[in-house]
Amino acid sequence: MNDYYRHIAACNPPVDEVFLPWRVDHHLVGWIRPSFADLLQDFDDIFDLRDDEVRLDRRLQGFTERSDSLGAVARELAGRGITPPLMDEPYAVTPAGRESALCVVDRAAAAYFGVRSFGQHLNGFVRAADGLHMWLGRRARDRLLFPGALDNMVAGGLPHALTLQDNLIKECAEEAAVPENLARKAVPVGAISYNRVAERGFRRDVLYCYDLELPEDFVPRNTDGEVEEFMLLPVEEVAKIVKDTDDFKLNCNLVVIDFLIRHGFFDPDSPEYLDLVMGLRQPLQTAGNQPGPVA
Amino acid sequence: MNDYYRHIAACNPPVDEVFLPWRVDHHLVGWIRPSFADLLQDFDDIFDLRDDEVRLDRRLQGFTERSDSLGAVARELAGRGITPPLMDEPYAVTPAGRESALCVVDRAAAAYFGVRSFGQHLNGFVRAADGLHMWLGRRARDRLLFPGALDNMVAGGLPHALTLQDNLIKECAEEAAVPENLARKAVPVGAISYNRVAERGFRRDVLYCYDLELPEDFVPRNTDGEVEEFMLLPVEEVAKIVKDTDDFKLNCNLVVIDFLIRHGFFDPDSPEYLDLVMGLRQPLQTAGNQPGPVA
Repeated sequence: MNDYYRHIAACNPPVDEVFLPWRVDHHLVGWIRPSFADLLQDFDDIFDLRDDEVRLDRRLQGFTERSDSLGAVARELAGRGITPPLMDEPYAVTPAGRESALCVVDRAAAAYFGVRSFGQHLNGFVRAADGLHMWLGRRARDRLLFPGALDNMVAGGLPHALTLQDNLIKECAEEAAVPENLARKAVPVGAISYNRVAERGFRRDVLYCYDLELPEDFVPRNTDGEVEEFMLLPVEEVAKIVKDTDDFKLNCNLVVIDFLIRHGFFDPDSPEYLDLVMGLRQPLQTAGNQPGPVA
Repeated sequence: MNDYYRHIAACNPPVDEVFLPWRVDHHLVGWIRPSFADLLQDFDDIFDLRDDEVRLDRRLQGFTERSDSLGAVARELAGRGITPPLMDEPYAVTPAGRESALCVVDRAAAAYFGVRSFGQHLNGFVRAADGLHMWLGRRARDRLLFPGALDNMVAGGLPHALTLQDNLIKECAEEAAVPENLARKAVPVGAISYNRVAERGFRRDVLYCYDLELPEDFVPRNTDGEVEEFMLLPVEEVAKIVKDTDDFKLNCNLVVIDFLIRHGFFDPDSPEYLDLVMGLRQPLQTAGNQPGPVA
């Protein structure tokens, strides 16, 4: 099972660089790489840059004013090619859960600000006579991240102010043409979390996980161009892909491992079992739990 | 859901007292309350008591010699009424997983030595036309711990050197007269963990969790005197008991909460959802992760 655990380790690498706390009104909402903080000097009416932290200017007050200012910054940085093009998906900037958002920032810039990020991943499976099968997607080749990699049947980020239920139904329709009445049968089965130092910044992600049992005659069909193809594989074969390859998008491996655990595909007598169960839920790095030695 | 979280909090109280590390061969295997360490002065050929830690005497070598010495201590302490009567269930003394045991100590004394403890809890459920129902047991009134409290259908500690599968089949037979062919259908679905300062000592417990779907006509029957009665309740009613009462044995609440999460009974849009999901799996307090300020 060490072959499985390596994916958990890859999603939670050691934090061996400095990130600056980013605060809104003294609330810690993110972690920013010093090199990115340097770029924010061009916006000194929006950010108050200190040696040891980044603050949103205290003159900016209220959800809308703060969000508009961050929107202007994100637009400018995307225009300069520093961050990817805007995605028009507002992500919560929050010291705690989604419901505590102090403002929003476009998804394209969110990782650079090291804000918490929330997503939903759905395991679409079929209970066939010869055992469980799982629907996988292959990401389109033109996707910015992990082009061509395997993906869970439905997976998407969670914009601010959309309920989990509404966003899931939307993603089910867009990614796999799952009709709403079927999508509503998706069972929320928990969540996984990880803290990943990535190229863009410090990711502190939560993925809400869902199981959706599908009729044998259902065939997913992509409608938004994000998925190149779908395939239906025996769960044992999916497990082997996770175990032996890096074909899956990084965090999707964890979603599959969680599915395999919950459905009894792992032997709990194995010494690695507890590492997998515990490793899927990492305490979120927040205030007082600093990711690295701050200068 | 705060009404649910209070059980997780109760299983993980703040550690505000000093425990002494207990080492075997420099391996940290447990945490001992100083008042209990004082009692070990009577066994100075077995323990090497220091100001800041307790060591098993280095002259004791090998699994058997160490286990025999600890057995003598446990017998003597039980005889003096300091610990409960011996249970003849050897518990692993280990710096890591069960497979790394350096010796064993009787279950009756294990909590005083603050060793890791492993158990198995099984959710017996029925998929009826009107929804899921769960079998609960009520603990016999003469049980040492939590007499008369509600319990999962089958639950037991995990003695050293028994496989999870063998012990589960044994417990299923003893506690609920589940025939072996049915017990083998139990699905391992993960594990929960907590670190609890209890009257006896510092508990660092892992409970392996199982779901067993039962035929509608199956009725559990206790054979070992540990269960006073069994009852079959709609899962919503079981949830209400956990939410509104303290009728369950403390850690069984967590097993039920895990079941409720995995089967979609909680709304993930609730702000407490992530606290519950994350709270069920506490990092184990081990070396370098000291429970309290050690003198």
